[in-house]
Amino acid sequence: MYFDPVEALDRPALERLQTERLRRTLAIAARSPFYGERLAGLNIDDIRTPDDITSLPFTTKDDLRSQYPYGMLTRPQEEFVRLHASSGTTGTPTAIFYTQGDLDAWADLMARSMYACGCRKTDVLQNMSGYGLFTGGLGIHYGSERLGMLTIPAGAGNTKRQIKLIRDFKVTVMHIIPSFALYFAQKVREEGFDTADMPWRIALIGAEPHTEEARRKIEEMMHIKAYNSYGLSEMNGPGVAFECEHQTGMHLWEDAYIAEIINPETGEHVAEGEVGELVMTTLTREGMPIIRYRTRDLTRFLPGQCACGRTHRRIDRIAGRADDMIILKGVNIYPMQIEHCLMAMPEVGQNYLIELVTEGVSDQMKVKVEIKDEFFVEDMRSLQALQKRIAKNLCNEILLTPRVELVQHDSIPKTEGKAVRVVDNRSKE
Amino acid sequence: MYFDPVEALDRPALERLQTERLRRTLAIAARSPFYGERLAGLNIDDIRTPDDITSLPFTTKDDLRSQYPYGMLTRPQEEFVRLHASSGTTGTPTAIFYTQGDLDAWADLMARSMYACGCRKTDVLQNMSGYGLFTGGLGIHYGSERLGMLTIPAGAGNTKRQIKLIRDFKVTVMHIIPSFALYFAQKVREEGFDTADMPWRIALIGAEPHTEEARRKIEEMMHIKAYNSYGLSEMNGPGVAFECEHQTGMHLWEDAYIAEIINPETGEHVAEGEVGELVMTTLTREGMPIIRYRTRDLTRFLPGQCACGRTHRRIDRIAGRADDMIILKGVNIYPMQIEHCLMAMPEVGQNYLIELVTEGVSDQMKVKVEIKDEFFVEDMRSLQALQKRIAKNLCNEILLTPRVELVQHDSIPKTEGKAVRVVDNRSKE
Ligand SMILES: [Zn+2]
Ligand SMILES: [Zn+2]
Repeated sequence: MYFDPVEALDRPALERLQTERLRRTLAIAARSPFYGERLAGLNIDDIRTPDDITSLPFTTKDDLRSQYPYGMLTRPQEEFVRLHASSGTTGTPTAIFYTQGDLDAWADLMARSMYACGCRKTDVLQNMSGYGLFTGGLGIHYGSERLGMLTIPAGAGNTKRQIKLIRDFKVTVMHIIPSFALYFAQKVREEGFDTADMPWRIALIGAEPHTEEARRKIEEMMHIKAYNSYGLSEMNGPGVAFECEHQTGMHLWEDAYIAEIINPETGEHVAEGEVGELVMTTLTREGMPIIRYRTRDLTRFLPGQCACGRTHRRIDRIAGRADDMIILKGVNIYPMQIEHCLMAMPEVGQNYLIELVTEGVSDQMKVKVEIKDEFFVEDMRSLQALQKRIAKNLCNEILLTPRVELVQHDSIPKTEGKAVRVVDNRSKE
Repeated sequence: MYFDPVEALDRPALERLQTERLRRTLAIAARSPFYGERLAGLNIDDIRTPDDITSLPFTTKDDLRSQYPYGMLTRPQEEFVRLHASSGTTGTPTAIFYTQGDLDAWADLMARSMYACGCRKTDVLQNMSGYGLFTGGLGIHYGSERLGMLTIPAGAGNTKRQIKLIRDFKVTVMHIIPSFALYFAQKVREEGFDTADMPWRIALIGAEPHTEEARRKIEEMMHIKAYNSYGLSEMNGPGVAFECEHQTGMHLWEDAYIAEIINPETGEHVAEGEVGELVMTTLTREGMPIIRYRTRDLTRFLPGQCACGRTHRRIDRIAGRADDMIILKGVNIYPMQIEHCLMAMPEVGQNYLIELVTEGVSDQMKVKVEIKDEFFVEDMRSLQALQKRIAKNLCNEILLTPRVELVQHDSIPKTEGKAVRVVDNRSKE
């Protein structure tokens, strides 16, 4: 039923395991130059529950940069067997080092993740991700072999060969970047095949943020079940959180990580179920543990229990970066909250724009919203009613009332690449 | 001293080990559809020494193609965890399947190989080879981790980032394609660094054929020791044969393979020390054993014992492909024999051309040879003497006397890419 019985451990036992591992992690971490100093004075006996982690300082990306290359290591460099580094030839990169034990633990987490969404040793996995310094390629590869799947290290590119391999070896599981999946489905048809006749049944689509709509479209076009995942190289790489077969959020493996969700401004925990910045602590990494890492990724814990029986909490798909947060009149607002609210209304079209302005002494939010043609009628009263309804829904979500302007389809200029959703025109005094 | 004591096993014990493993391999192989039929009627008790392998049939690349994809497998596909396939979207590819046990054995051979040329767990290895379906990337990667080196999966490309990684992490061992190494050394200098100041000390330069001169040039320009290796995906990938620190030929790991060198026309073993086609049999592969595989690669066993104490025989660097063999008047000639003979003479320039022609009822070989300017004098008698000397040296090597024509520097047209060395103008009756 589960790859590892720990996935269904009851919460009290899971929390005892977390506490024990947190204490061990802190003892190990203190051997590194960075934490040796940062944690000086910490009495490990004061850590009695996972919640006691809140007494510890955060670790940021800048901390990792400042310790490049060896400042985070708890043992001599010769005891490490793998290094992944962020790309970029300018600026200070970050480097993550792994012992053999760390690689084994990571492969186990990755295998468990793929098992959770239905992968079995009888499956054939085609890894269509680039290998190399990026953790996605080797992470999936090692996990797939650990699970016992026949693993095809196809790498990125060469669409025709990918299709031939999938057909020749009856590939049932694909690791594919979501933005490539739709293009790939199109190519399969251009080669004269019906996506419904392909042998695949599962697509693993992590590695880049995507919407629920994109997932459903991939599933429809490819005739496949697509599962979302979350990972970051600071926490090993992929295999941090993964959807089970129910596709209702990603189980975050709490025997291997302590996850917190904080208000990125105050550093305090948000209320249960609220969106905030994910903060993570490794519990099983021996070579380079990281304590309370500020991921800058926004998400929330999903309430309730999952039907699969796994007890590890689920996080929602990533709703943006903490750096995107808007602070208006002392209230924290994430653009994604506004998007969710707008997209839930059938009258709203594809595009919207948030503008922040200063009027007199106070800052205001204006939201320009495209309305679908069939709702953009000439009846002024119903348009005004819609406008009011949108403002009210937004107020329920973000706790202040923006000025809403309704515009016609295609009125908001489109930009190449990532859409610009927020324009900040506030006076900077 | 050795990664595995088996490397220095005395010959009688090594041959007993080979016999035992050959018998086991044959028993396993017979479970595959292909060998079940091919080896029907074989009595394994007839195999009493490694030499008894000569009673078995060869396996060719065409055999592998005809069995694509599953005909060579000795167990159900779900017991395999890795697949490597030859590239190409047209024609039938070949596919090699690995069980977890096969991957472990391969990683051990690869680790042993790198240890033999001086790599230790204290080293930092940068793998500058592409990963994916090509066995070179993952083969080196797994072996490096097995040996305990800090392994940087840099992959191919991005020269600037490669240089930064090498400097930041004090890389001591590089896996680099020989044709890229000289370009890379140049780039290092263009970035303002002295190759003598780089932290590296070892380059592993297998993956493509190259001459001894190219190796020496790489060593000189990079201030590094460069070690040659041999492998092919049908025999796992890299790690089949590897140079030790003495750089006097590549030890072929005879506890894992039986190697033979045959006359590609007759299939008979050549005399000790003669060049011929390398034929290989796996001794430790459990999932997809291959018996007497015709590699088409030309080499010879090197005579004598290596100063390192390893008892496994050494092969010479690959001297071309069996398909390049010329048959003239019943004699087998390899273009590489002619090249070696010519390049040993100080008067001979860079280029030469072999032409095969029919004159009357008999076929002849003409060899056009570029002579260095300083030897291309107007003294007819000394030129004639040189011409005779070349013809005589060639006759000693290839056992027939070609017609030799001396030409000036740059007289032979150069071609883009691989040089054309042989032109066959014989009448095809
Ligand atoms: Zn679940
Ligand atoms: Zn040796």
